[in-house]
Amino acid sequence: MPVEISWSGWGDPAKAAPLSETITSLLREALGVTPRDEPPVDLASIVPPPPRLDAEVLAALGKVAEVRTDAEARVRHTGGKSTPDLLRIRRGDTAHTPDAVVLPGTHEDVLAVLELATEHGFAVVPFGGGTSVVGGLAPQAPAFVALDLRRLDALLEVDETSRTATLQVGLRGPQAEALLAERGYTIGHFPQSFEWASIGGFAAARSSGQSSAGYGRFDELVVGMTVATPTGTLTMGRAQKSAAGPDLRQLVLGSEGAFGVITSLTVRIRPVPEARLYEGWSFPDFAAGTAALRRLSQDGPMPTVLRLSDETETLIGLARAGSVGKGDSGCLAIVGYEGEPEEVAARRDRTRAVLAALGGTDLGAEPGESWAHGRFAAPYLRDSLLDVGAFVETLETATFWSNIPALYDAVRAALPGHLVMCHISHVYASAASLYFTVVSGQITRDADWDAAKTAVNEAIIAAGGSISHHHGVGTEHKAAYAREIGPVGVEVLRAVKRALDPAGILNPGILVP
Amino acid sequence: MPVEISWSGWGDPAKAAPLSETITSLLREALGVTPRDEPPVDLASIVPPPPRLDAEVLAALGKVAEVRTDAEARVRHTGGKSTPDLLRIRRGDTAHTPDAVVLPGTHEDVLAVLELATEHGFAVVPFGGGTSVVGGLAPQAPAFVALDLRRLDALLEVDETSRTATLQVGLRGPQAEALLAERGYTIGHFPQSFEWASIGGFAAARSSGQSSAGYGRFDELVVGMTVATPTGTLTMGRAQKSAAGPDLRQLVLGSEGAFGVITSLTVRIRPVPEARLYEGWSFPDFAAGTAALRRLSQDGPMPTVLRLSDETETLIGLARAGSVGKGDSGCLAIVGYEGEPEEVAARRDRTRAVLAALGGTDLGAEPGESWAHGRFAAPYLRDSLLDVGAFVETLETATFWSNIPALYDAVRAALPGHLVMCHISHVYASAASLYFTVVSGQITRDADWDAAKTAVNEAIIAAGGSISHHHGVGTEHKAAYAREIGPVGVEVLRAVKRALDPAGILNPGILVP
Repeated sequence: MPVEISWSGWGDPAKAAPLSETITSLLREALGVTPRDEPPVDLASIVPPPPRLDAEVLAALGKVAEVRTDAEARVRHTGGKSTPDLLRIRRGDTAHTPDAVVLPGTHEDVLAVLELATEHGFAVVPFGGGTSVVGGLAPQAPAFVALDLRRLDALLEVDETSRTATLQVGLRGPQAEALLAERGYTIGHFPQSFEWASIGGFAAARSSGQSSAGYGRFDELVVGMTVATPTGTLTMGRAQKSAAGPDLRQLVLGSEGAFGVITSLTVRIRPVPEARLYEGWSFPDFAAGTAALRRLSQDGPMPTVLRLSDETETLIGLARAGSVGKGDSGCLAIVGYEGEPEEVAARRDRTRAVLAALGGTDLGAEPGESWAHGRFAAPYLRDSLLDVGAFVETLETATFWSNIPALYDAVRAALPGHLVMCHISHVYASAASLYFTVVSGQITRDADWDAAKTAVNEAIIAAGGSISHHHGVGTEHKAAYAREIGPVGVEVLRAVKRALDPAGILNPGILVP
Repeated sequence: MPVEISWSGWGDPAKAAPLSETITSLLREALGVTPRDEPPVDLASIVPPPPRLDAEVLAALGKVAEVRTDAEARVRHTGGKSTPDLLRIRRGDTAHTPDAVVLPGTHEDVLAVLELATEHGFAVVPFGGGTSVVGGLAPQAPAFVALDLRRLDALLEVDETSRTATLQVGLRGPQAEALLAERGYTIGHFPQSFEWASIGGFAAARSSGQSSAGYGRFDELVVGMTVATPTGTLTMGRAQKSAAGPDLRQLVLGSEGAFGVITSLTVRIRPVPEARLYEGWSFPDFAAGTAALRRLSQDGPMPTVLRLSDETETLIGLARAGSVGKGDSGCLAIVGYEGEPEEVAARRDRTRAVLAALGGTDLGAEPGESWAHGRFAAPYLRDSLLDVGAFVETLETATFWSNIPALYDAVRAALPGHLVMCHISHVYASAASLYFTVVSGQITRDADWDAAKTAVNEAIIAAGGSISHHHGVGTEHKAAYAREIGPVGVEVLRAVKRALDPAGILNPGILVP
């Protein structure tokens, strides 16, 4: 049995590590962090209200899928992993607890569950890794089931000629990679949530991985999909690219379970890289580093991993590593190369020449290796910070390169009084993403965050940014998303929703304004 | 005034060139080509029926746009440039002649025309270059206007930092490139229709250019769009990539005017390449050449232009060039490189090593230069072939690499008794396109082609191909397209159509099954 993700925090509970007394004191002094009034409750003490599904419905569900209604299963499928989600579940809040957990074993099982839901009027929330950080698992429904897809865990086909693999969606990142590694392949998609999120979730939320510069975003890796909807099955992808009408794959990618349940995905695969090199570079300031990343994104060569921390994030990172933080520590860039050794060496040489010419200082392998070592660990640190009373949350956006400085300023201005760090996490020829981490001693409960989050969302939209680069819309971004796509865009989404889910049973209240 | 495209054939009438007597004899002997019974009619002799729009409606249109109802303007906006279209207009068939030609000058004019159409119940066919080869300009409507977008011809903005340009959609390919070249930039999109098609058409039909290996397909170059719909304006694209829900740009791209009228596009631009090198390579057979293209597409390096003719197309090409065709002439690949001289040289060296290692024989620059010289000329040749009585038409599809041989065989088997040539025209990591040219002495009228085309469409769908890689759906592929996307996909399109165009006035009968 694989380890279950922590019910009230991130990842493997065995990997949680408390903060040192030094760090805790620093948080207290610098940010006014104080321990929370109420300690977290125990899992066993949470007793959700009785399921709002009658026995007949549960029996019918039991004929087409595994069904669990015990308190532990239901609590473990409550909400996602945003900081407000964690603060709520830590105090035993069961407002978003499903009435039952349903585990289908096949695509047909999923269709049958959707049919029952349409007939009996309960909602269905597709549940992959349960790692949404945007309220993607908080449906507006009187009764709902979590449709846990973990039993859909097969590697269905590897097409070595086409370099594609067809996988069922319940596979978590490491499971999918392990199955493909047996054949010598990788998807190359490694978001921070990699260890716990499912590949179906990567597609449904338009995930982007830390190696996106080299491998592409997940929505660029998907070439085919099978989707169960209340209206029937949608099968897409006869070629990587086509002119046969609109690209309907791009309508399901990012649809967050509101249009259908993705049951299998055909994705591009590549040979497992023989060489992996990550290194650190320092730039005098964020503007100089940004210019260097832009130059590589537009004129090449393109590293596999490319990210740049602003001055604050660089300084905090150095402090955490035990280095003495100085005011002129500059901005840290992580630059990584993966592939065949010879190709990697050539690409690295050319990249290094560009970075040096644009004001970069070579920091060697240590910062890169350190980043690679801790690349999936940040969410554990959040748990430790929450434990001592700090509030920490992340948010992200994207815009065209020319608008990056204005968007950066707008987000920071919308969060006065908090510690705000940022990095450019993903780059494209014409645009880039900004990923912010907010730490605060003033925000103590999930409800305190609402006003701040609303202000940031509005600032992002007003500054021309997209409301999400890779976290998705969920419920937290829904109002801002409606402003981003405008009333005509909203009508399009509603029309698709009505066509595929006429009874409105799929993830109601998520995504579609 | 720019030259008007030929009303009954391709391009600039001054560039038409009759076939030599030798070629004509060869066509007669090898394919049984005989002169057509009826010679083409004159433009002046075509008298379309009176407009089916009453004076009040025409007057209302005249207040919001330029309106032309003269016979010449109407005939020049009749149908597209498929071979059946040309055969029909050559005999004076006005079944697809618009009742009026409407030329809006602004986005708001377009909205006003759509409002009048909704109110008065006439249809609107967006008309860019008029170069559809899939019946995209043959609406099912009692009365319709051609919405000629040529007055929307401004370069609205160049964002040099983001490497994007915002252009109005009526610009033809060369106009758009000339405006950008003044600033040192290029879009890099050069389909065979480049000289006459509009950039709005490139987007609406998901065009793919001959340099797609280097620059990407047009749908990959579009990062933002403004669309006028009967429901209102849809503005999309706050970043190149985003996780803010489904990518609605990908719903309008390929929608062929059925969902709305694209009025401006923001596209990626690149510096005009300093170096351009095209060369020829020969492979012993199509399978060996295909393997080489696949290897480059998957493992790199990627040339800017990459295409491979099958044995038949290679042989015919040699015969046309005056070389003695031999049975073992192999398969010709064209490999091109564009960019900075140093980068081009390095990429070329690495590419050549791969091609040679995979059985390719270097043919030097001549075949490449010859291809580049004639890259936009094939449609003129078609006119000359039609003049002597031959039938010639092209069709194209795409599939994953592993399915390329089966799809190639299936299409050829569906066209017995005709001369069928093929090349791989576009390549991706997981897939490629097949572009077929069919020459026949047996098919003499447009109606003769219907049965053959239906058989090919069915063969493509049965063999797992996409019904179009870059020509689009129009009316000719609509039945097959419905099979490709399935009944649930059809419901999605219909729902979007109802939401954006409730009165069904936009290009009725095109795309949406």
